Amino acid sequence: MSEGISLEELQLAARNHGLPLEALRWDVTPVGLHYLLTHYDIPVVDTTSWRLEIDGLVERPLSISLDDLRARPAVEVVSTMECAGNGRVHVEPHVVSQPWLLEAVGTGRWRGAALAPLLEEVGVAAGAVEVLFEGLDRGVEGEEEQVYARSLPLGEAMRDDVLLAYDVNGAALPPQHGFPLRLLVPGWYGMTSVKWLARIRVLDRPFDGYQQRHSYRLRQEEGETGEPLSRIQVRALMVPPGIPEYLTRARVVQAGECVLEGRAWSGEAEVAGVDVSTDGGESWADAELEPDSLGRWAWRRWRYEWNAEPGEHELCCRARDDAGNVQPLESPWNVGGYANNAVQRVAVTVTE
Amino acid sequence: MSEGISLEELQLAARNHGLPLEALRWDVTPVGLHYLLTHYDIPVVDTTSWRLEIDGLVERPLSISLDDLRARPAVEVVSTMECAGNGRVHVEPHVVSQPWLLEAVGTGRWRGAALAPLLEEVGVAAGAVEVLFEGLDRGVEGEEEQVYARSLPLGEAMRDDVLLAYDVNGAALPPQHGFPLRLLVPGWYGMTSVKWLARIRVLDRPFDGYQQRHSYRLRQEEGETGEPLSRIQVRALMVPPGIPEYLTRARVVQAGECVLEGRAWSGEAEVAGVDVSTDGGESWADAELEPDSLGRWAWRRWRYEWNAEPGEHELCCRARDDAGNVQPLESPWNVGGYANNAVQRVAVTVTE
Repeated sequence: MSEGISLEELQLAARNHGLPLEALRWDVTPVGLHYLLTHYDIPVVDTTSWRLEIDGLVERPLSISLDDLRARPAVEVVSTMECAGNGRVHVEPHVVSQPWLLEAVGTGRWRGAALAPLLEEVGVAAGAVEVLFEGLDRGVEGEEEQVYARSLPLGEAMRDDVLLAYDVNGAALPPQHGFPLRLLVPGWYGMTSVKWLARIRVLDRPFDGYQQRHSYRLRQEEGETGEPLSRIQVRALMVPPGIPEYLTRARVVQAGECVLEGRAWSGEAEVAGVDVSTDGGESWADAELEPDSLGRWAWRRWRYEWNAEPGEHELCCRARDDAGNVQPLESPWNVGGYANNAVQRVAVTVTE
Repeated sequence: MSEGISLEELQLAARNHGLPLEALRWDVTPVGLHYLLTHYDIPVVDTTSWRLEIDGLVERPLSISLDDLRARPAVEVVSTMECAGNGRVHVEPHVVSQPWLLEAVGTGRWRGAALAPLLEEVGVAAGAVEVLFEGLDRGVEGEEEQVYARSLPLGEAMRDDVLLAYDVNGAALPPQHGFPLRLLVPGWYGMTSVKWLARIRVLDRPFDGYQQRHSYRLRQEEGETGEPLSRIQVRALMVPPGIPEYLTRARVVQAGECVLEGRAWSGEAEVAGVDVSTDGGESWADAELEPDSLGRWAWRRWRYEWNAEPGEHELCCRARDDAGNVQPLESPWNVGGYANNAVQRVAVTVTE
């Protein structure tokens, strides 16, 4: 970040919304505070003519209305979603794309129809390997005109917690979250959960569209095939304590007992614990991790009682999960600046 | 913008939300797409203990609960709100603060209790000149620890369309818009409409707090007193037509009939008209301005039928109001980078 951000990156930052980190305080993120990454433009969808088409390698293709989807049994999942590009600004050398610091996350109470029974109803034919999800958002990327489209391996698509979501936090999806219908794949980075869903196609080979072939892959060099991104890497974030200075966001904390709090999540496995450092990572102590009362796919709250002594401090938090993953202290580099789950560092000044 | 944006400015851009300009299509901005500028942190407010205090130069100071405010006659106003810093990035030389391009605007259907009857009830005493509004958001600015606070001249505070708003778009305010209560002053720049309102004080002299004395003033030089900002200057914005390229946001339009559309507003007077140019401002034509069906304080929709011919074009729109104000072609400069209502320019490539 030594060279600053270009006008093009600022254009993205101005239209894509981050979660102000103090909003980690809410179990479920209020609408309007959840992060939002829109590749192209937010489409306006007329639900009187909108249909979801399900076709491809299926025995009984289906065209279904929103009312018919809403009439099916509803499933609700509280799910933490994170952008695969979260943390990109901290990657060196600098990667040009949406310049997320750490705020590309949010948790929604999503409600919709489960995908698996719909796929059973249309009858996935022999030879199927993936399911493709196409949105209504259109644009140009990599010099290709395209609709936003991403696929899932058939096994993931058949998970019973994968939803076609029409509600969030008890109300119809707002336009920016995919009205009238979006895919919701708990535990996977946000690019998977295709918004403004119009078509589901069962495929007999892996999808090679732009968002699968080029974007959202871990590569060490331009041009190599790389590995596709999928599950959200383990991370903890902290509510910056005290009060901010407007321009610099520098934090000022009153000396004495100070409760540090935040959230931790992982798409790979259950969160096993969160460690906190108040000396820039030289020493670490266990934070108290609250039970997962919101279900497997939601972030978990953690807290740590700190006796803040006057002076300058660097606060850090570091999560680990049951699969043995732990956050790195330094930002890993890759061509796209993806999946940077390096430890958050919050500088604070403690005053008498 | 030739030198780029600093990390500090990016931190602001990441937490303050702009209206993606395609959302100008909605008469009333869906929650989550309205612009949002938060000086400090979004506070969490417990409504069981929250009260609004009304005191200062009044005969009968009042402490009132949210339920009591909701029990009073409700007033609804559809109001377009814009940040005084909108357009700041286009000001040269560069001004360091929240780096808005053009997206710091939105329109809400606000509902609440009118302020004037409350002030009549408490009895504004002789000698009163201003009314001060204090929020619950705390931070440091200009090396002063402060709560966010702004005042209004008594005459403006007594306008019958000034609200203490508890709802927006038919639901309780979300946290980021000032839950449980905010001031809403139609026609004034957004800094006036204090969020997370906790106290109203009637003053016998002009308020000289930081947000009044230092911020939100038009100055040609640091240190001079300058003129306070108040009413929103006339502006039109356009929905960028066609489809975007992801990174550059460059627009591609199909040749043929293309409806250009957008919104226009002014806090000074009724919008009188909108002119459109498709040749970078060399020639202008009248756009069709729709009636103000949402009331005086809401933006008005405009449209213009363009026969798009293949090639490169620069589209512009320029509004004027009944007070004789018209948008400038070049960005005016001032120390804070405020009130830059220069004409929007949208470059498009028209393809066969």
